[in-house]
Amino acid sequence: MTIRVGIIGTGLIGEDHGRKLVNVINGSTVIAVTDVNRARAEEVATQLDGAAVFDTGLDLINSSQVDAVLVTSIGPTHAEYVLACIAAGKPVMCEKPLAPTVPECEQILAAEVAYGQRLVIVGYMRRYDPGYRQVKATLEAGTIGDALVLHNVHRNATVGEAYTSFMTMTDSMIHEVDTTRWLLGEEITAVQVVPPKRTPLAFPHLQDPQFAIFTTETGILSTVEFFANCQYGYDVRCELVGSLGTSSMVNPSVASTIAAATLSEPVPADWRQRFGAAYTAELQAWITGLQHGECVGPSAWEGYAATKVVEVGVEAVKTGERMVIDYIEKPALYR
Amino acid sequence: MTIRVGIIGTGLIGEDHGRKLVNVINGSTVIAVTDVNRARAEEVATQLDGAAVFDTGLDLINSSQVDAVLVTSIGPTHAEYVLACIAAGKPVMCEKPLAPTVPECEQILAAEVAYGQRLVIVGYMRRYDPGYRQVKATLEAGTIGDALVLHNVHRNATVGEAYTSFMTMTDSMIHEVDTTRWLLGEEITAVQVVPPKRTPLAFPHLQDPQFAIFTTETGILSTVEFFANCQYGYDVRCELVGSLGTSSMVNPSVASTIAAATLSEPVPADWRQRFGAAYTAELQAWITGLQHGECVGPSAWEGYAATKVVEVGVEAVKTGERMVIDYIEKPALYR
Amino acid sequence: MTIRVGIIGTGLIGEDHGRKLVNVINGSTVIAVTDVNRARAEEVATQLDGAAVFDTGLDLINSSQVDAVLVTSIGPTHAEYVLACIAAGKPVMCEKPLAPTVPECEQILAAEVAYGQRLVIVGYMRRYDPGYRQVKATLEAGTIGDALVLHNVHRNATVGEAYTSFMTMTDSMIHEVDTTRWLLGEEITAVQVVPPKRTPLAFPHLQDPQFAIFTTETGILSTVEFFANCQYGYDVRCELVGSLGTSSMVNPSVASTIAAATLSEPVPADWRQRFGAAYTAELQAWITGLQHGECVGPSAWEGYAATKVVEVGVEAVKTGERMVIDYIEKPALYR
Amino acid sequence: MTIRVGIIGTGLIGEDHGRKLVNVINGSTVIAVTDVNRARAEEVATQLDGAAVFDTGLDLINSSQVDAVLVTSIGPTHAEYVLACIAAGKPVMCEKPLAPTVPECEQILAAEVAYGQRLVIVGYMRRYDPGYRQVKATLEAGTIGDALVLHNVHRNATVGEAYTSFMTMTDSMIHEVDTTRWLLGEEITAVQVVPPKRTPLAFPHLQDPQFAIFTTETGILSTVEFFANCQYGYDVRCELVGSLGTSSMVNPSVASTIAAATLSEPVPADWRQRFGAAYTAELQAWITGLQHGECVGPSAWEGYAATKVVEVGVEAVKTGERMVIDYIEKPALYR
Repeated sequence: MTIRVGIIGTGLIGEDHGRKLVNVINGSTVIAVTDVNRARAEEVATQLDGAAVFDTGLDLINSSQVDAVLVTSIGPTHAEYVLACIAAGKPVMCEKPLAPTVPECEQILAAEVAYGQRLVIVGYMRRYDPGYRQVKATLEAGTIGDALVLHNVHRNATVGEAYTSFMTMTDSMIHEVDTTRWLLGEEITAVQVVPPKRTPLAFPHLQDPQFAIFTTETGILSTVEFFANCQYGYDVRCELVGSLGTSSMVNPSVASTIAAATLSEPVPADWRQRFGAAYTAELQAWITGLQHGECVGPSAWEGYAATKVVEVGVEAVKTGERMVIDYIEKPALYR
Repeated sequence: MTIRVGIIGTGLIGEDHGRKLVNVINGSTVIAVTDVNRARAEEVATQLDGAAVFDTGLDLINSSQVDAVLVTSIGPTHAEYVLACIAAGKPVMCEKPLAPTVPECEQILAAEVAYGQRLVIVGYMRRYDPGYRQVKATLEAGTIGDALVLHNVHRNATVGEAYTSFMTMTDSMIHEVDTTRWLLGEEITAVQVVPPKRTPLAFPHLQDPQFAIFTTETGILSTVEFFANCQYGYDVRCELVGSLGTSSMVNPSVASTIAAATLSEPVPADWRQRFGAAYTAELQAWITGLQHGECVGPSAWEGYAATKVVEVGVEAVKTGERMVIDYIEKPALYR
Repeated sequence: MTIRVGIIGTGLIGEDHGRKLVNVINGSTVIAVTDVNRARAEEVATQLDGAAVFDTGLDLINSSQVDAVLVTSIGPTHAEYVLACIAAGKPVMCEKPLAPTVPECEQILAAEVAYGQRLVIVGYMRRYDPGYRQVKATLEAGTIGDALVLHNVHRNATVGEAYTSFMTMTDSMIHEVDTTRWLLGEEITAVQVVPPKRTPLAFPHLQDPQFAIFTTETGILSTVEFFANCQYGYDVRCELVGSLGTSSMVNPSVASTIAAATLSEPVPADWRQRFGAAYTAELQAWITGLQHGECVGPSAWEGYAATKVVEVGVEAVKTGERMVIDYIEKPALYR
Repeated sequence: MTIRVGIIGTGLIGEDHGRKLVNVINGSTVIAVTDVNRARAEEVATQLDGAAVFDTGLDLINSSQVDAVLVTSIGPTHAEYVLACIAAGKPVMCEKPLAPTVPECEQILAAEVAYGQRLVIVGYMRRYDPGYRQVKATLEAGTIGDALVLHNVHRNATVGEAYTSFMTMTDSMIHEVDTTRWLLGEEITAVQVVPPKRTPLAFPHLQDPQFAIFTTETGILSTVEFFANCQYGYDVRCELVGSLGTSSMVNPSVASTIAAATLSEPVPADWRQRFGAAYTAELQAWITGLQHGECVGPSAWEGYAATKVVEVGVEAVKTGERMVIDYIEKPALYR
């Protein structure tokens, strides 16, 4: 059974995911696309086996041709589309964030709980990265004892002028929020942000790099250095420190070169190069799940929790104080 | 367009490839299987979306339901099936070796040349491994200058009693024969085999490890240490030495652990773990090629050349002498 | 000219340094020792070419046989001996800390300034470690641009019951205080300490691990995870993040082993194994300097600054607040 | 007791060793030097605390001021000086080779045996390298089982026009001859040399790189790729393959840099940088041994065996054939 996917939002990531659903993923096709920019949607459609172009996201969601929906439009539109999918009883994968505000996320949780079964997954692709999975497996095997501290670095070559100091939290560290929760199996209950010295190579309005300390329910610290303009490439790593040992995720290495007095390995250029395989694995897991009538991927609760943490995180960026995070009660559907 | 594949030989590797064609590869399905052991074929068929079970390979090849054939039966049967595919004008992927004898390989070359276009690819999956590809890209970029020496190690945890000293050449080093030819873009023109001290942990009839020196057309040495019973895991690496530098393929690394006074990384357990992704990439490239009417993968000439080298290599194991290798003229089809 | 050293305090580190001065260092001998435990001093003296045993540190300092003094007695005695050396115009190397209280350190600064030339060095041996030196050289070469963040981890296998939460600052992180100042060439102006989840493998009175954030004059953050009971060994590493790149000090590696499905390297067992060569280099630099009439090593100002930071750091452990650090004006002697 | 060393031959290596004996080694001084170029000897003497300059090596050897002799003159003069030292009953450290011809080495063995105790050591400094020692310790601990194959690479940036194809054996691979013997505890009984493709960056008369296969008494293979003009730096590594695992000596690593899309570590520039510490350790072991009346270091037998192997090795370079190596009986003095 081929899953016929409709894509809402044919920007770079929508196009990328679309191509994978058509050319790489087993069991899916793209039947429909839509975008606020119709010309763009039509251009992308031609690359996707001639998917139909719909006028609106709601039309697409409600089409009987569409088995499942991929939401890759801009963040502020996510809630509307995800809620419409739930109303239509249709599986939906929403790129992060689930929604940019906590009330929207809570609305989605309520709707999905009312529907009575999971339809929504959120695109936290790092959970499908072999390095992160090895760290998690090592923790779960007991090799490093109890988790105590998690150190994260997250560096990006450069960002444009539109990128703001708050986006370090809402767009970038949101990934570490998710991996922290997922690796440790605990909610984050507090956050403090401490600004380091600024790089001279960022736009003047941007605090870059940024340093955050997240604390989990049982007191585990998860530190995050995020650097938007590190210049040298894309570099995501972590070290999980336990009571008996540590487990470190490193840049994948398959070959090295020696020349000109130097032993060297390439560093990834960007997130697409570094996590391209993780995106593929995430899409495949979603599609294979749908073929078996299952909803496989990070749930709406994971989406809500991440949005909640970064909402408080933005306040922490403003105040410099340690801010506490409270959650609504976790519905039984997500336990 | 979905490529409907028929599989001849449903042993471990046939089953593995079959599952990938059904569940992982984009654009393929398995429509038919056959095996000398019909019960086994029927058992495997149930896992492959209920593929039809054919009585013979020839029936399968000639079925109008079958778009392309995968030959994963035992080596001595390869030539018959590949020739039948060519006669039927049907694309075929044959697991290595193309055929165990040189005359059979030459017959296949002649048949394909007579047919007038390429139909045959041979399963040398290492060409799809990211580590090997990085070594090749580094050479082609000029970073390490002219290739001069290639060092290879190829180690396997243990082998059964049926594994013989000649199989070190025909079943194992044949992979290094192919990667040497492919990395360097040259034919191998001589081979010498020098036996090291034997491990006490092999069956007494087996010379293990084994050390071979292959020489290419322009004099590049490709050394191979093959060790069938290294006990510790599966370990394939190489270092290509050029006039300006070297490029080394290492075991892929994504995470490390520190515990009990030791920094450690896992070593692959077997070829399936180490080269599973390369097999997938090879199958996907073949299927995607077929969808576009192209024959993508190592050609019958590559299969012939590898068989030719290991045939002489077996004599080199017997004699201990440096043996020279002569080829038939390369048909235009393969240039 | 052989430098005749007198040692005050023949505990483990005094004995260790003494053996090096006699057997490893070029240009020194140990002429005299003293210890509050006279029997211990006599026992150690027999290993040191029969050095004379003095009744008191002051006798030793004032002996005309003694060219230079090594103070390796307990911290609270340091100031008295160092001041006596200055009064006697005699070069002195004092193990860290220079003195445990800021007023004592200030008294030493005043005395040395009054004397008019440097006599005192403090034993911050990490400055002589090749890894740290390579990080510093990389920064100074401009390869990584402007320093922005320094991440440090400092882990120790186990500590005894006498080790307290304040000692994480005064005995352990004091090393990162010094390396931060030295690598970055800036004073530390603030410190905050955030407690992570406690390991179950420490004595109940000890907060372990501990996480501190030091801020320098220009706003560079230096983070330190210190873990006294990490169980697995001794592990000191750092990553210095600059505006163009990063430089990381790793555990020295000279060989690796593959066995039992694992690639591994040993982790140092303790500080003696990890920094033994740095201690030797530090002693040699001091002795060679003395032979040329120079005072080579971290100055009394470096000792004062480190004590100042950790004194405030202890308050930061107590309060959990970010504490600001003020210094006296730096005397010209130390600029 | 300070050992007063006399140095015969004040070329680069003699000067280097001399400086270490004066400034770095504990327990030695340089009392006398001599060189065929007297002006050079006088110039070096001024750097060595004003050591006396002698007219001839024999005068120096026979001076009552000289406790021990270091022979760093050119190879053809070694035997004469070493024999004179034995005649004078004086300890001598001779840089490799012990002597360039087998008859000279045999004469030295005979003289030392007649003298009745060891006086001679030969400068094979790699035995003091921590990486090599870790490989040997791993073998001896049983971790990798029985040794079966040893792979060596030995690469040098560039050589001058005077360097010949035979010197690959007598000057360069002689180091691998010694490390093979020492690591494995066995004599080498055969050697074959196979020439790879030549680098375009060597003088035309030089076969470069060179590939040799040494076989030991029990059949262990030791392969050596030697490359005199690899351009990129100095690179010496080995992997010892045993029946249970492998142990690899790598370039020492203490820090790494990330910048410009690349993770990198420096490769040593030359043997002085790579093995400087091993030379120091070797000299210190010799001097400390002499202070205790012992002769510590590779014996004259080790020097003889290495010369014997490379003498046959030169024939192997000429013939391309596997050449067998026979030794005189090992005198009891060296067992």
